[in-house]
Amino acid sequence: MIPRYTRPEMAAIWAPENKFRIWLDIEAHACDAQAALGVIPETAARAVRERGAFEIDRIDAIERETKHDVIAFLTNLAEHVGPEARFVHQGMTSSDVLDTCLSVQLVQASDLLLADLDGLLDALKRRALEHKDTICVGRSHGIHAEPTTFGLKLAQAYAEFDRNRDRLRAARTEIATCAISGAVGTFANIDPAVEEHVAKALGLAPEPISTQVIPRDRHAMFFAVLGVVASSLERLSTEIRHLQRTEVLEVEEYFSPGQKGSSAMPHKRNPVLSENLTGLARLVRMAVVPAMENVALWHERDISHSSVERNIAPDATVTLDFALARATGLIDKLVVYPANMQRNLDRLGGLVHSQRVLLALTQAGVSREDAYRLVQRNAMRVWQENADFLSLLKSDPEVSAAMDGAAIEAIFDLGYHTRHVDTIFRRVFGD
Amino acid sequence: MIPRYTRPEMAAIWAPENKFRIWLDIEAHACDAQAALGVIPETAARAVRERGAFEIDRIDAIERETKHDVIAFLTNLAEHVGPEARFVHQGMTSSDVLDTCLSVQLVQASDLLLADLDGLLDALKRRALEHKDTICVGRSHGIHAEPTTFGLKLAQAYAEFDRNRDRLRAARTEIATCAISGAVGTFANIDPAVEEHVAKALGLAPEPISTQVIPRDRHAMFFAVLGVVASSLERLSTEIRHLQRTEVLEVEEYFSPGQKGSSAMPHKRNPVLSENLTGLARLVRMAVVPAMENVALWHERDISHSSVERNIAPDATVTLDFALARATGLIDKLVVYPANMQRNLDRLGGLVHSQRVLLALTQAGVSREDAYRLVQRNAMRVWQENADFLSLLKSDPEVSAAMDGAAIEAIFDLGYHTRHVDTIFRRVFGD
Amino acid sequence: MIPRYTRPEMAAIWAPENKFRIWLDIEAHACDAQAALGVIPETAARAVRERGAFEIDRIDAIERETKHDVIAFLTNLAEHVGPEARFVHQGMTSSDVLDTCLSVQLVQASDLLLADLDGLLDALKRRALEHKDTICVGRSHGIHAEPTTFGLKLAQAYAEFDRNRDRLRAARTEIATCAISGAVGTFANIDPAVEEHVAKALGLAPEPISTQVIPRDRHAMFFAVLGVVASSLERLSTEIRHLQRTEVLEVEEYFSPGQKGSSAMPHKRNPVLSENLTGLARLVRMAVVPAMENVALWHERDISHSSVERNIAPDATVTLDFALARATGLIDKLVVYPANMQRNLDRLGGLVHSQRVLLALTQAGVSREDAYRLVQRNAMRVWQENADFLSLLKSDPEVSAAMDGAAIEAIFDLGYHTRHVDTIFRRVFGD
Amino acid sequence: MIPRYTRPEMAAIWAPENKFRIWLDIEAHACDAQAALGVIPETAARAVRERGAFEIDRIDAIERETKHDVIAFLTNLAEHVGPEARFVHQGMTSSDVLDTCLSVQLVQASDLLLADLDGLLDALKRRALEHKDTICVGRSHGIHAEPTTFGLKLAQAYAEFDRNRDRLRAARTEIATCAISGAVGTFANIDPAVEEHVAKALGLAPEPISTQVIPRDRHAMFFAVLGVVASSLERLSTEIRHLQRTEVLEVEEYFSPGQKGSSAMPHKRNPVLSENLTGLARLVRMAVVPAMENVALWHERDISHSSVERNIAPDATVTLDFALARATGLIDKLVVYPANMQRNLDRLGGLVHSQRVLLALTQAGVSREDAYRLVQRNAMRVWQENADFLSLLKSDPEVSAAMDGAAIEAIFDLGYHTRHVDTIFRRVFGD
Repeated sequence: MIPRYTRPEMAAIWAPENKFRIWLDIEAHACDAQAALGVIPETAARAVRERGAFEIDRIDAIERETKHDVIAFLTNLAEHVGPEARFVHQGMTSSDVLDTCLSVQLVQASDLLLADLDGLLDALKRRALEHKDTICVGRSHGIHAEPTTFGLKLAQAYAEFDRNRDRLRAARTEIATCAISGAVGTFANIDPAVEEHVAKALGLAPEPISTQVIPRDRHAMFFAVLGVVASSLERLSTEIRHLQRTEVLEVEEYFSPGQKGSSAMPHKRNPVLSENLTGLARLVRMAVVPAMENVALWHERDISHSSVERNIAPDATVTLDFALARATGLIDKLVVYPANMQRNLDRLGGLVHSQRVLLALTQAGVSREDAYRLVQRNAMRVWQENADFLSLLKSDPEVSAAMDGAAIEAIFDLGYHTRHVDTIFRRVFGD
Repeated sequence: MIPRYTRPEMAAIWAPENKFRIWLDIEAHACDAQAALGVIPETAARAVRERGAFEIDRIDAIERETKHDVIAFLTNLAEHVGPEARFVHQGMTSSDVLDTCLSVQLVQASDLLLADLDGLLDALKRRALEHKDTICVGRSHGIHAEPTTFGLKLAQAYAEFDRNRDRLRAARTEIATCAISGAVGTFANIDPAVEEHVAKALGLAPEPISTQVIPRDRHAMFFAVLGVVASSLERLSTEIRHLQRTEVLEVEEYFSPGQKGSSAMPHKRNPVLSENLTGLARLVRMAVVPAMENVALWHERDISHSSVERNIAPDATVTLDFALARATGLIDKLVVYPANMQRNLDRLGGLVHSQRVLLALTQAGVSREDAYRLVQRNAMRVWQENADFLSLLKSDPEVSAAMDGAAIEAIFDLGYHTRHVDTIFRRVFGD
Repeated sequence: MIPRYTRPEMAAIWAPENKFRIWLDIEAHACDAQAALGVIPETAARAVRERGAFEIDRIDAIERETKHDVIAFLTNLAEHVGPEARFVHQGMTSSDVLDTCLSVQLVQASDLLLADLDGLLDALKRRALEHKDTICVGRSHGIHAEPTTFGLKLAQAYAEFDRNRDRLRAARTEIATCAISGAVGTFANIDPAVEEHVAKALGLAPEPISTQVIPRDRHAMFFAVLGVVASSLERLSTEIRHLQRTEVLEVEEYFSPGQKGSSAMPHKRNPVLSENLTGLARLVRMAVVPAMENVALWHERDISHSSVERNIAPDATVTLDFALARATGLIDKLVVYPANMQRNLDRLGGLVHSQRVLLALTQAGVSREDAYRLVQRNAMRVWQENADFLSLLKSDPEVSAAMDGAAIEAIFDLGYHTRHVDTIFRRVFGD
Repeated sequence: MIPRYTRPEMAAIWAPENKFRIWLDIEAHACDAQAALGVIPETAARAVRERGAFEIDRIDAIERETKHDVIAFLTNLAEHVGPEARFVHQGMTSSDVLDTCLSVQLVQASDLLLADLDGLLDALKRRALEHKDTICVGRSHGIHAEPTTFGLKLAQAYAEFDRNRDRLRAARTEIATCAISGAVGTFANIDPAVEEHVAKALGLAPEPISTQVIPRDRHAMFFAVLGVVASSLERLSTEIRHLQRTEVLEVEEYFSPGQKGSSAMPHKRNPVLSENLTGLARLVRMAVVPAMENVALWHERDISHSSVERNIAPDATVTLDFALARATGLIDKLVVYPANMQRNLDRLGGLVHSQRVLLALTQAGVSREDAYRLVQRNAMRVWQENADFLSLLKSDPEVSAAMDGAAIEAIFDLGYHTRHVDTIFRRVFGD
């Protein structure tokens, strides 16, 4: 969690203040349930509700001594609650608090990430609609293929992040469980009703079966989803980086007056935001494998996962939050150059129509093999001589034999390629 | 895909025969739709349906020449279909065939994996019910904690693989899409109706927006789920390996008469199946990162993902299929030693009741801090002197002052720990 | 190991024939040493040398029964050697054979990979020298920065793969060890002299301390190095892909007459070799993490690493061998377009000289801040108006105040940027 | 970089203070070289040396405005140096400073890690020598195999970390390079002599050929080595965790008076340090893949690596430093229980001698197959009936027919297994 890639709201989720607040909530809700069951006095539950409090400094001081964070917290809590504090945490184990708290934090983080995704989707949709008909070349292998529109590129990204929203919602459900089940998950010292009460109070589902800990396949799935979202960000940012390169320059990241692109070369305007997003994607993704390695805890639990999660839970969510927000700003303010798109589209002298010529020749009765040969031999001359494809075709006797000049010219129509854009937009954005 | 870790049914999905069969299906369905649209003659579609065929050797021979697999296939197909073959593949691009075929193969693989999961779940459920009340020690950190039952261990695994079934179903949906959208996904040369027809015929959904290729976030998500399932297998097999170690020996993999555990040491009976599963889990998991790296294809597509998928798609599904089947057999025939479980449970002289003693002391009015100190000091003597915990407690004056001998004895009751097993089983398996 | 990405010489290393040949060598050398120690009869050693042989089919048949590969091999060997065969493998354990064989195979693979690297280095050096002075634009962030030469790009790659050669040599040494140390590595049933003899005979070093197995940190390091080499290939191929994109077209993969770039678009010439290399790099790299996960075998050994290595050892070496050879061919036949390089260099109207103008202004007494502002404001007009940088500067009164026209013009000299190319080449290639 | 897993000395390397101190050093050394070349006045170099200083708060404030860290630093530096500051950084690019600084930091980190390794090696050697002859059972597959000594286990770890020391030294050399080569590495605006001077002054080698940045294959190799070292830590800590489990209890982490193993179960003494090391190993290892993904920067450089390195460089080195120190303390204070080792060794009723019985029967003329069958059938009875292996063998008529009772008894000699311990120790520790 590096300050420069951190936004305050997500950071707050992982701050000690929030963690201890959740711990207090868990303990207080558990006391309510225990009191309702008659296991502890009603007065004890009320005492926790009314006087429950903590000070981070004090907890830290106690932890330096006891080397156990939950014990330190409970000790500090007891200083506020008084003698009734001995009923707190009854029958519970530290993991009940720690794991349920992690669930709450991951749910909070998911909600922020979902809001981030909504923001990104809004920006993508707005810009996609704006450029629905902004024609540009589509490329495969980095080579000009056939015309498309810039709006379609953004609509593709929209559809991808829309899928990511569904995945993230599913991931949120995965980790939204509560375990208050005791030392090895048998509820030996605590009634399952306590778990049900606490779960409900915190908006979680009771973990059907836990073993001191909430099973880590849930967390593995959660971080895997973050890794997929990050990979989509890498795709989107890679596209921008490509489109901004000097020779292409179809779009450009917003470059504010007074900004400096390079300390040495004053002429530079670099796609630094999207490059940064590429790196951030790697950072988020690196949580995936250790999260999977965390699944195979020994027996009812070991604690090898703990240090991993102390790191990846804040880091991956904070980084992804920052990255999604950065991507949103990037798309929102992206400068688009339709004239350059048109210029690039023209660069290959009409070669982007080669497939349509091929099909037309086929339909005019030429065999596919012959048609391919005819089109390719003229196309190669365009590459080599920078010639005009249409002229070459018209003066190729074999081509002319199959189609007259007007028929060939009719093929060179960009509108042909955008006929179905509305259909695709309806598929993506609905009506 | 190593023969020794491969089962024929899954291997068949990835065999050339199946691939070309699916290609033929796609082309034939596309011809039907094109004929219905009036784009190609009805006779052409019928010719493909009636005479469409291929020979793998012939395709290979053509591919060695053209270095393009789809062209090789179409050429061989044309040899069977005759002149009408020129209407085949009209307006389509190779990726339309390749990506849709991969979807079909991954769906087929998913269905096998789902069936595998069902088998494993059956085995886990059967053995869980069988050992619902087989008491054994629960361990945290590899150290005895409190009693649990062997059935609960298996129920936990059941719940985990049940979640994996849901994840795999979602993953199946992720990759069950069809793209017939042309060179850059604009449907320039082919009507979207063709895609819809082919999708329906193959049991897929039309990809809402593709860019020559089906977007690879879908595949990344698919392989991530396989990685999670594999991690759960690692957890289950690690548990078996632990329980079989010489000093524990609570369960044992079935060791057939005549089997040899070691070429050098005739006494050996090793948990080789579960060790193997641990390794196979690593193999499946290694597909996750490259699948995520595949997402950021350049522009409308590049072909860097192709070599990766040619490897990980068969390898990860074949390996996971084999591993799930192996795990099923392992659980099915697992030899369980309840007597050893009881012996291990007794090994710590009753220390597994320490928490309950602690709670009882607290409820008897001793402060939590004092109670902890009292219990720990007697517990440590058990560790050091191999003493009996109950006797020590009864002869500890501070403990006796709070609870009489009968009250202490009443605590050492294993039944206390299994009271909620039925509740947990209901949560996991339903009523 | 996919046929299309496999070369026969590397595949042969991993074929059963080679494996069993090495096993036979190990057993025969061990017998020699045992006979010299007087542990087994001299006649037995001679029998193995003279009559030792195997048939793969027969071994497979026996293994289907015994489910143990080494036992199957020894049984088949005994069928050839006769009664003296009972002295074979004496005091050894299967791992002695398996691990030492893996060492030999990895050494053989390393030697092929080192030869591959030599080939690639030759190609890079030849083309680097050929294009030492072929000027082109250097880019940071995908944006034109300052001039460089194409030879420098290749020299950089040469230096990188030269480092990889050193790394691979070190990796070869890492895994070139022999263990013949018995069941838990204590030499209980076999004298350390046997290990020393076998090691020497096979060109390996004795493993100083083994535990039935050769420690897997060695293999982890080996595969990590393959991952780094693969990453360098990704870098080189990414550079080619960038330089070949339509708008840049400074280089192009060799496109043979008759080749088809796309089944649908006859005009296409795609950088498919370098795209493929990008994917192959991901495949090689995916071996790194499981190889590291293999290190923590339980106690003196478990067998979880085995399934992993059966896969990654052939796959990673075969894929890297293929990729290095493909990269060599790619560089060897790469078509370079100096005219396009010059055209691209001119595209930004002289902006590539902006730093030098900045420095000249500074040396002419203008403060760095003012100089930056002056240069940037003219540079931004070039971006926006496609203007000529030199003309703008000359007509900027503040610039003119500091430097006269001739001084400004003198700055726009490409030769200035290539003055040190010879120095750098000497650093990389020596004198 | 989580405080609880951070040691101050390593953290200091990554603190802003150290970074800016190195930046100042680089600039000052560069000025010296530039002055010696006559490019800038001698007075300027002296001014930097004498008045060069910085304030972190001030740099931060400027950076918030300029959004460029090197420019912010140079501006603050100029406030101290005065007008001569305009000669600072002449002809250099930000990366010259950033990359060379990273090299210095990684070298500093390497030196700490090497010292950590020395500490761990000392502890391992001391405890290995102490327990050279402490006999215990060796295990394969978690199952008793044959006797070994605890000293051999530690000697194995020593040999492994000794290899890691060599690897880390090589990794240190990999990243100990300096680049002062300008915008695209051509030295256009700065003489190579400057780089040579700065490199020498900082104890680095000049990077033979850079491209604005130092090539990232170096860093990939560096982090890969950290990943291997971490994997060795995982192996060592996994061994401790196994040996401490309740049923084994051959060693135990030091448990201080007053320590609490569990908030709920006062009897617990958990191997929390080694479990923690397992998790920390995953954290270090997760840097490997992104470091490899960083290699393929676009053209002469892009900035995607930067965010990755800002995270993994401090995190991986800080975590590994902490983990090595923790491992050293763990080994140093590890409590060893030889009596438990002997008890476990006896647990299988002598089965650990099965191989030697097999060999003896073979040498007594029994065929290997028959001998195996005889030994296995008695061994299986030990497993099933908890019988005594020696007695069973002596009363087995087929065994007795081959060997008399005394001969069989002579086999059950633990000393046989430790005959070569001295030899192995000499191999590992020298004479």
